[in-house]
Amino acid sequence: MSLTIQTPTLILNEAIVRRNIARMAEKARRSGVRFRPHFKSHQSAAIGEWFREEGVTAITVSSVRMAAYFADHGWDDITIAFPANWLEIDAINALAARVKLGLTVESTETAAFLAEHLTAPAAIWLKTDTGYGRTGILWDNFAYRAEVAAIIAAAPLLTLRGMIVHSGHSYRIRGDHAAIRAVYAETVARLSAARAALAQAGYGQVELSIGDTPTCSVVDDLSAVDEIRTGGFVFYDIKQVYVGSCTVEDVGIALACPVVALHPERNTIVLLGGGAYLSKDFMPYADGTPCYGEIALRGPDGWHTGLVPGCYVKIVSQEHAIVHATPELLAQVKVGDVLMVLPSLGCMTANEMKAYWTLDGKLLPMMGYCG
Amino acid sequence: MSLTIQTPTLILNEAIVRRNIARMAEKARRSGVRFRPHFKSHQSAAIGEWFREEGVTAITVSSVRMAAYFADHGWDDITIAFPANWLEIDAINALAARVKLGLTVESTETAAFLAEHLTAPAAIWLKTDTGYGRTGILWDNFAYRAEVAAIIAAAPLLTLRGMIVHSGHSYRIRGDHAAIRAVYAETVARLSAARAALAQAGYGQVELSIGDTPTCSVVDDLSAVDEIRTGGFVFYDIKQVYVGSCTVEDVGIALACPVVALHPERNTIVLLGGGAYLSKDFMPYADGTPCYGEIALRGPDGWHTGLVPGCYVKIVSQEHAIVHATPELLAQVKVGDVLMVLPSLGCMTANEMKAYWTLDGKLLPMMGYCG
Repeated sequence: MSLTIQTPTLILNEAIVRRNIARMAEKARRSGVRFRPHFKSHQSAAIGEWFREEGVTAITVSSVRMAAYFADHGWDDITIAFPANWLEIDAINALAARVKLGLTVESTETAAFLAEHLTAPAAIWLKTDTGYGRTGILWDNFAYRAEVAAIIAAAPLLTLRGMIVHSGHSYRIRGDHAAIRAVYAETVARLSAARAALAQAGYGQVELSIGDTPTCSVVDDLSAVDEIRTGGFVFYDIKQVYVGSCTVEDVGIALACPVVALHPERNTIVLLGGGAYLSKDFMPYADGTPCYGEIALRGPDGWHTGLVPGCYVKIVSQEHAIVHATPELLAQVKVGDVLMVLPSLGCMTANEMKAYWTLDGKLLPMMGYCG
Repeated sequence: MSLTIQTPTLILNEAIVRRNIARMAEKARRSGVRFRPHFKSHQSAAIGEWFREEGVTAITVSSVRMAAYFADHGWDDITIAFPANWLEIDAINALAARVKLGLTVESTETAAFLAEHLTAPAAIWLKTDTGYGRTGILWDNFAYRAEVAAIIAAAPLLTLRGMIVHSGHSYRIRGDHAAIRAVYAETVARLSAARAALAQAGYGQVELSIGDTPTCSVVDDLSAVDEIRTGGFVFYDIKQVYVGSCTVEDVGIALACPVVALHPERNTIVLLGGGAYLSKDFMPYADGTPCYGEIALRGPDGWHTGLVPGCYVKIVSQEHAIVHATPELLAQVKVGDVLMVLPSLGCMTANEMKAYWTLDGKLLPMMGYCG
């Protein structure tokens, strides 16, 4: 790797990321579903272009600001997969006037608000909870969903497009593909029941959109739905390796961190690379121990995908990352070296870093990057 | 509050923050110790000026970049309280040439590296571990500390200034002032023993510098040390309320978050205000439940310091913050309202937000703010 590392630097392996994109795009084509990847994972117009090269024309984002950023970079079919925020109605209207905008609704109040305040057309996706429990209308609350649908159907500028779900409970699975397939089957069954109830209430033809990365990665045939929105697959992370969505060879980013102290007496190595860089998101191991990332050595292609056994970031404060280190690693590493941390949650690390560097030294800025 | 909230906005009560600064500055004067506040907590040149008005001339930062930012804003006595990162030696040398620079060292290797590569004078602080276990030379490793001191003493550009400690284990205390005082007493005793051993080895006159916010907040007379570096006291946070460092009336920042969904059937309220805003840092309650922040209603002075009983942010994803809400709160709040979240870890929330807004609508940018 030719890059000179002085401070924590987010390294991206373009070959891995492009392969991940191509593979998911191909699966979507094969399944006959729309691929509307979630761009909150990478937040980068430059990486967006790699999706375009794979034929992607529709995207998902998580905020109005992110929608505007990608609209500014030529994307014109954008779903904001977060409950519509009334307080941003002016920005939403500005977006609706210039792109094919999809909005997420989960209440009669928000449906009525949009019916009254939207000034340009928008497609409406009903946020549906099929078991995750974070937010959305419960899948079997058929009556309430029909009430919301009625408000949308009566509003000239709103089109009821479908149901949108994030089966985030699949992220709790550890290495069990059958369990991931079961989440998909249950999601499809519950969405189908909700769709049938909507049709019976007079709102037919709604689409089904799913988004969780484990399901989209592991299930071969996704044709029971109409759209997939996975985003995290773009560079995966350690958590997805443990979930079973990918192998470590599919992880496309790593945080290069300066080694600032060794403590053999405590089995630790101290890195510059704390929560301000990695984020404070962690994956719990089976015994509950938090893991903020696992450790790789630098290699000719950025990092060795054979991770260092038994070594992981166990504590982060604002600047410090404390690695639980084996005697083998401690014997190999010196102060002034660089260790590579494959993050537990890639999206959140990217969100902290605001830019990627490719192995050949290209800077890929993200939304909010300012040099 | 006159500010219009559309997206998560970090609100700062200037009167509270100035009072916190004045109080700590006064305590430092009374104790006869140098007040070298940690500016990583607020990261804002504008807030730095409020410290200057209280007579502060020396500061602490956690990174080379932050040192350069504050040097650019007129600060000329700066300690970087993080193990010196060899890979930034050029930037360190540039800083050492323009300010009175303090560096943190915890190994013979780093001492030797600086002795060889520094091109301008620097004060050296020996990072000492008196019980926290994060990093630093163990307090009773007298022989190794003397070895490091010898390298520093022999280097013409290095001056051995003192021992620097962060008793971060005080943050695990919950509301027990005697326990906080005991941490202080133990820290002082261990540092004093280490200082005596250094003196015996021929390195006398070293200063003692402590930094944890609980100790600096709760102990009245800090005269057993030479310097205090607390930073988090500037606006405190929910964790410090539980630790016992402050009352909720001393918390000077809150994140204003749009309400996007209500779920009485799940006892939750969904806010726009997830990990990308609040950070993913949490305080565990006594039973282990994670708390990312507690909830206040908006009030004429920004927010009501009488927090909403039993309500807290229990889950955050990138954009979502899920509030555990009582029926009372659910009955009071509507979609489109704003709730105030007093963060569990104020510094990390500030680090995400990159700017504060005062109650009278002044923008206080932080390092890295770009509009």
